Amino acid sequence: MKCTGTIDVRDVDESSINIDPIQVGGRLTPDAMKALIAYGDGYSVCDQCRKPFRLDYIRTPPIAQFHRDLASFVNMEIARVVPGARRGFQAVADAFISPGDPVLITALSHYTEVLAIEGRGGVIREIPKTGSNIITSEQAAQKIEEVTREFHRSPTLLFLDHFDYQYGNRHDVAGIIRVAHQYDIPVLYNGAYSVGIMPVDGKKIGADFVVGSGHKSMAAPAPSGMLATTSEWAGRVFRTTGVTTDVTKRTFGIKEIGMMGCTLMGVTLMGMMASFPHVRERVTHWEEELANGRKVVDALMSIEGTLIKSEYPRNHTLTRVDTTGSFDRVAQVHKKRGFFFSSALKGKGIAGIIPGATKVWKFNTYGMTGSQAEYLAAVFRDIARENGLAVTD
Amino acid sequence: MKCTGTIDVRDVDESSINIDPIQVGGRLTPDAMKALIAYGDGYSVCDQCRKPFRLDYIRTPPIAQFHRDLASFVNMEIARVVPGARRGFQAVADAFISPGDPVLITALSHYTEVLAIEGRGGVIREIPKTGSNIITSEQAAQKIEEVTREFHRSPTLLFLDHFDYQYGNRHDVAGIIRVAHQYDIPVLYNGAYSVGIMPVDGKKIGADFVVGSGHKSMAAPAPSGMLATTSEWAGRVFRTTGVTTDVTKRTFGIKEIGMMGCTLMGVTLMGMMASFPHVRERVTHWEEELANGRKVVDALMSIEGTLIKSEYPRNHTLTRVDTTGSFDRVAQVHKKRGFFFSSALKGKGIAGIIPGATKVWKFNTYGMTGSQAEYLAAVFRDIARENGLAVTD
Repeated sequence: MKCTGTIDVRDVDESSINIDPIQVGGRLTPDAMKALIAYGDGYSVCDQCRKPFRLDYIRTPPIAQFHRDLASFVNMEIARVVPGARRGFQAVADAFISPGDPVLITALSHYTEVLAIEGRGGVIREIPKTGSNIITSEQAAQKIEEVTREFHRSPTLLFLDHFDYQYGNRHDVAGIIRVAHQYDIPVLYNGAYSVGIMPVDGKKIGADFVVGSGHKSMAAPAPSGMLATTSEWAGRVFRTTGVTTDVTKRTFGIKEIGMMGCTLMGVTLMGMMASFPHVRERVTHWEEELANGRKVVDALMSIEGTLIKSEYPRNHTLTRVDTTGSFDRVAQVHKKRGFFFSSALKGKGIAGIIPGATKVWKFNTYGMTGSQAEYLAAVFRDIARENGLAVTD
Repeated sequence: MKCTGTIDVRDVDESSINIDPIQVGGRLTPDAMKALIAYGDGYSVCDQCRKPFRLDYIRTPPIAQFHRDLASFVNMEIARVVPGARRGFQAVADAFISPGDPVLITALSHYTEVLAIEGRGGVIREIPKTGSNIITSEQAAQKIEEVTREFHRSPTLLFLDHFDYQYGNRHDVAGIIRVAHQYDIPVLYNGAYSVGIMPVDGKKIGADFVVGSGHKSMAAPAPSGMLATTSEWAGRVFRTTGVTTDVTKRTFGIKEIGMMGCTLMGVTLMGMMASFPHVRERVTHWEEELANGRKVVDALMSIEGTLIKSEYPRNHTLTRVDTTGSFDRVAQVHKKRGFFFSSALKGKGIAGIIPGATKVWKFNTYGMTGSQAEYLAAVFRDIARENGLAVTD
């Protein structure tokens, strides 16, 4: 069915159980959908923008309050909305990194952190992972020492993902930050897979910056996200323009350089705001989400030849699985080849797995009901059995 | 009426004739509204993202084709979507400016250009305006000479607004670009007030970069926009990552540093795309839009003591007006003080003027029907007459 012109209607989340690893935390709430309809127009939030003419000062709709709520949500002091977590990384990179500066990421860091650092000419160094794909504070300490010897100064900044995008493994952010702070290295906590789906306490973790993604984990439209920091660093990352132009002697008020002035002037922000009360509530149900995920993981583990590549037991609903010894064996002889698997899933109402993938793939059970999780678990086992794979009870 | 929680329904464009200077070109088309509803969820455009995993390669929905259409729309060679025109400025600034580089703007440039340059440590120099608030090629040539003497090298870049945000005046972009190119200065054409509402031919103008704003002039949700360039500069502004990490030896494909990877992964892009066929058509009706604007401007000029601060006759629907000698005289004695004016406008169904403003203010007639323009013209004259101001016929 066409939505308009050459664009098809999208109904994947209405018609299926979607287990796409990046999509599930960004599905809108019904309230966000209402806000989209009311605030769809371009600069829709600017009706009542008054002096000093900055997004985070607007009181109607309650954007100023939302900024305070966001900061308190992650227990930090000051927050801004940004067009995606990556633009938060970029703003921090811009404020801290000079060309040639050593900057730490981890062996499981997201590519957008790499781009943010590369854009400023920083030299990237990775904290290695353990054999079980975990980043530890021991490795962080060792790498900091190595980099300090190499560059004759400690790294400028550390980008740290609480849960990585590859395995959804949990890393010891508090421990690593404690180590980094011993070397006076500020740390950006990347909460793209945590802020908005589980409780995050920036102060307890010790983060200097907390970045979250609206479209990944806060039930908001893209691109949206947040960047929060402490009062110590706010003046640097949210520094205001200092220019007086040469001819007209213009100045530009309190516009923030790193934010490029206002950031989300319409539907993206309103979607975030409308979802926020629900997001604040849903993070308290993280244990139930994990329980749902475990049902599915356990079902996959019961299929002969299937390996869970993520840490086990799971601490996140995003999981990486290796079915080279199970579903891929079927693909070798099936008339649909590798497409048998996504096709069978689709036939049973499951969406979000790349068609043709039967070796190593990822899924995310976030946002399911308990019975949807049970159904999905049964689906994996059924597809296995229907294709002659042994399934233990 | 509440939309949800603490957020009121926004119905300014359903209930009024909106003349807000920045909002009128960014109101959604009905098709964009449909796309919002279908593609509201976070990463909604990524369902069929396949190798090489980049937004502008996605074929369903037809994002790849849209990128080609965008480039051709402004007659440039390569285009990308960006989270607002300002992020296009930033990407170009990042690719060209080193600290201390002299960079030209004009006396009427938008503040976001200033932030983009300031963010890279560029030194801003303004091309002056004439007494009638126009930027000319003569002044550009003279300023380039001055700056070249001051810095012992020519400016690194020139940011040039076709129509400025203060007066909506038209500046001689083609002539200024011709001059800049004689000094080998690349020019960014800021089409925030042109791309999407009137025909723009980047090649004919001679622009090295064409930037447009989705939420300002392309009937799209915020933040959205476009950055187009020539094949000469594409490799620089859209350069791809060159990093190989030290431990895992990861590389990051063809992700573009200046874009921070993918830019608009959901509703903002789909809104732009759904509106695009209408936008492409509507730019051919620019003369009718100007005719509507002139009706209103003529009505204001018929009110004793009212001055049109923008160039006259108008070449844009955005106009700056000085009513210090008319409506502000009323405000001095009216019991509602300055609020009488916005209040009277509101009573007659007109929205978009800052409450209390009676001295110098701006309005934009873009998107009105002919009879709405006649009605608005009559409203201004009526309010004048009702408050004892002389109105000529």
